Amino acid sequence: MDANTFVLFGATGDLAKRKIYPALFNLFIDGKLPELFSVIGLGRRAWSDDTFKANIEQSLHSFSRREVKDPEAVKKFLGFFRYHVLDVDRTEDYQSLLQIIEQREQSLSLTPNRLFYLSVGPELFETIASHIQNSGLGDTTGWKRLVIEKPFGRDLQSARDFNEQLAKSFAEEEIFRIDHYLGKPMVQKLEVLQRTNPVIQASWNNRYIANVQITASETVGVEERAGYYDHSGALRDMFQNHMLQLLMMLAGHLPKSDDSEQVRLKKRHVMQSLEPLLPQNVSSQVIRGQYKQGAIQGNPVIGYKDEAGIPQDSQNETFIAAKLQIDDQFWRGIPFYIRTGKRMKEKATRIVIEFKEPIKQTGSTASAHTPNLLVFEISPNEGIYLRLNTEDAAQNQDLTKVLIGTHKSGSEVPEAYENLIYDALRGDSSFFAHWDEVELAWKWVQPIQEAFAANEVPLYEYEAGGFGPQAAHDLLAEDGFEWWFDQEHAEASSAPAQVSRQDKEPSLVK
Amino acid sequence: MDANTFVLFGATGDLAKRKIYPALFNLFIDGKLPELFSVIGLGRRAWSDDTFKANIEQSLHSFSRREVKDPEAVKKFLGFFRYHVLDVDRTEDYQSLLQIIEQREQSLSLTPNRLFYLSVGPELFETIASHIQNSGLGDTTGWKRLVIEKPFGRDLQSARDFNEQLAKSFAEEEIFRIDHYLGKPMVQKLEVLQRTNPVIQASWNNRYIANVQITASETVGVEERAGYYDHSGALRDMFQNHMLQLLMMLAGHLPKSDDSEQVRLKKRHVMQSLEPLLPQNVSSQVIRGQYKQGAIQGNPVIGYKDEAGIPQDSQNETFIAAKLQIDDQFWRGIPFYIRTGKRMKEKATRIVIEFKEPIKQTGSTASAHTPNLLVFEISPNEGIYLRLNTEDAAQNQDLTKVLIGTHKSGSEVPEAYENLIYDALRGDSSFFAHWDEVELAWKWVQPIQEAFAANEVPLYEYEAGGFGPQAAHDLLAEDGFEWWFDQEHAEASSAPAQVSRQDKEPSLVK
Repeated sequence: MDANTFVLFGATGDLAKRKIYPALFNLFIDGKLPELFSVIGLGRRAWSDDTFKANIEQSLHSFSRREVKDPEAVKKFLGFFRYHVLDVDRTEDYQSLLQIIEQREQSLSLTPNRLFYLSVGPELFETIASHIQNSGLGDTTGWKRLVIEKPFGRDLQSARDFNEQLAKSFAEEEIFRIDHYLGKPMVQKLEVLQRTNPVIQASWNNRYIANVQITASETVGVEERAGYYDHSGALRDMFQNHMLQLLMMLAGHLPKSDDSEQVRLKKRHVMQSLEPLLPQNVSSQVIRGQYKQGAIQGNPVIGYKDEAGIPQDSQNETFIAAKLQIDDQFWRGIPFYIRTGKRMKEKATRIVIEFKEPIKQTGSTASAHTPNLLVFEISPNEGIYLRLNTEDAAQNQDLTKVLIGTHKSGSEVPEAYENLIYDALRGDSSFFAHWDEVELAWKWVQPIQEAFAANEVPLYEYEAGGFGPQAAHDLLAEDGFEWWFDQEHAEASSAPAQVSRQDKEPSLVK
Repeated sequence: MDANTFVLFGATGDLAKRKIYPALFNLFIDGKLPELFSVIGLGRRAWSDDTFKANIEQSLHSFSRREVKDPEAVKKFLGFFRYHVLDVDRTEDYQSLLQIIEQREQSLSLTPNRLFYLSVGPELFETIASHIQNSGLGDTTGWKRLVIEKPFGRDLQSARDFNEQLAKSFAEEEIFRIDHYLGKPMVQKLEVLQRTNPVIQASWNNRYIANVQITASETVGVEERAGYYDHSGALRDMFQNHMLQLLMMLAGHLPKSDDSEQVRLKKRHVMQSLEPLLPQNVSSQVIRGQYKQGAIQGNPVIGYKDEAGIPQDSQNETFIAAKLQIDDQFWRGIPFYIRTGKRMKEKATRIVIEFKEPIKQTGSTASAHTPNLLVFEISPNEGIYLRLNTEDAAQNQDLTKVLIGTHKSGSEVPEAYENLIYDALRGDSSFFAHWDEVELAWKWVQPIQEAFAANEVPLYEYEAGGFGPQAAHDLLAEDGFEWWFDQEHAEASSAPAQVSRQDKEPSLVK
């Protein structure tokens, strides 16, 4: 891996503390940082290098997935870090930053490769990017890279405007857009599971698959993010980015290889093959909901409109379900059902592939067998389950639902941020959101945004602690399907070989 | 289930004690015996009914898979049984037997259905069958059935002669030939697993499968069966019956239903599609071996020729491996490798389906992935394992061999004899060996028998506690394959979700 300088904007912030420092530390322990490495932390607070390092060390003890017990390792790790006060609007601060970076590059004999990580609100992205360009920070004989996190705009037009601004300072291949769902190990495995397992490939098409269900449900409510969330909603906060990225990762078919260009082409193909949603079809293919009061695991919780900071007449959706179709040779005719919501019964991100039912026996009136399922548990538990029929219902034996699975235990599995920061340092963009994907995703959700804004789609209330509005159930029932594990999820979550692993995402207002 | 009389020849013998009484008892506990039921035990010993019942009760305590703890149930169960002294050669004894059966039929208001279970040596089969016929025992207004166990002859001609004799007294559909491998629950599931799981069906053909391996290895040596075994050998004792039956159960393709006629047609199709072994090919496709001294789990054991009752110059095989080909549209081009032996490293009966390797990536020199495997563990452990690749070797990550499995715990699983006796009582012959199969199997092994007898096939010695002769390894190596789990079987046997279940077969001289 190339020697480089990791320039971290927002170094005193919550995401840095919870995710970035622990991720860098674990990469260091795993020998995945370059030998020659420099981190410059930037913030408005007047911290000394020592205060900065003390804060980092504290964050490791609080948030590292591994126990931190080797003082020598910690000392060597902290040696990478320097702090610099920076006001993002002050040109002089960027000039002094450049001097510090160059000093470190010289004293450490570092190649002038520079990764700028913007762990700050999106309203600052353009300002910082242009200062990087104008100050000469980006004029380097090495490479430069920009790492940013969502939101990338709030609709198609604002996203395009935003991207146009960024493009003045960074080329597309220099921009690494983090979608932390793409950093989750099971999501990263989706592609390799298809590519390297003929047994999966054999049934991975519309001859065998009946439907695909992608669920990301949370038990939490709006938490402290009312101001942001009430203007975002489940569509912008989850669906346009995370959910559609999961769809792209899953539905990209048989890539020739796993290089980032192939992955990108494959994902773009999925979005381009996604049947556009006609305005008149939004209300039949998209369900929106808002939670009312209810109970999460026996504890009563208030409704969305009663949450602090949410207006009593809010029309914002905390749940969305949609039916999508991919019109290519592999997926034509297979409905994809996607749903995400807050205050649901369980915290779970999973993909369920439901296969067509077994061919009926001659003379029998109906198949007594349940369909095969291939289940990817993404978080908080990680696992792959294949449900097979093993008993013969015709012989009046009970049908055994076999959940067969694999898992890694929590501390073995790298955090999403570890994977993503490592890839950014290596310059591998396979698991980042390319502009094409962001744009196509905004384009696809545009009719939904418009229909929601015009109130053409009913806003159903649903009880907190349930499975969302009845209409989301009906969406599948019309096609003869149902959401898997809604009824039996208690059973499923007590399945063997599951590891409880809290993979909580930072609840930051960005 | 029809009321009936279960007439047990050999009621004082070892098989009855170890297997038949416990099986009947567990069927009784599971409500799988008819309400109206009579068992007449027959033997030469002058036992009273009470002695007989005391022996049965003792056998339940010693050999039942379930703890016997309900005295009322035991009492009711023992009420079915009566004992009668019988010399198999004395016509009068059959006459008195008929009287007893008829008395019981009358006093219990039993329909005169009669199942004759011959738990005796095969040399007595013909005698007993003809006496049943001549004494009028078989002249009943109800049904009659004959249950017998291997060996069914010792070559094609003797089997035909034997069958011709039996056919004078019983029609083919009245004869239930037990092959207790067909009673093992996992073997019975092979068919339903294919039929009801599209995910398995999708890859169940020569487009995806590279080869199939069927292994039945024992750690025991010849035990107390020298006299029988030295004249039988692995070919007659295991290969012609159990191993070929496993092949038929596995390779029968997509039956339309599971009725016994369909199963029979499917199995016959396999045997008829099996490429005949030409005499000149026996020595290249069949490996025979004989164990010499070695160690089983650290304990030294003697060689075959040094076993009590084995002549020093014995040329008998204790190991056989063979390569077979099924010439039909599903299996053409897929080698089936079958092996069975005594004094092997592990006690295990398993089938491994090895799938073709993943398609190589563009530009990569070789696939770094190992093939997918579908493993059926038949005994002593029971389970289904699917090995998938989950990590990307191209990223220099270790390849994770995932063994995903299902199992039932031992006491939940019916013993082979329970399944088989239940089926015989119901008149379902799906899991019995039909004469067609027996005959075709003898026909197929005939060239092997002749080549062995003429010493045209080398008899390799192999070390006790190993994996058989090197030549058996080479048999696969020539095709670019290897026996799975020989190297890693220790790992495999410590796989998750395996239940140690002793499913020891009775070591009877028949």
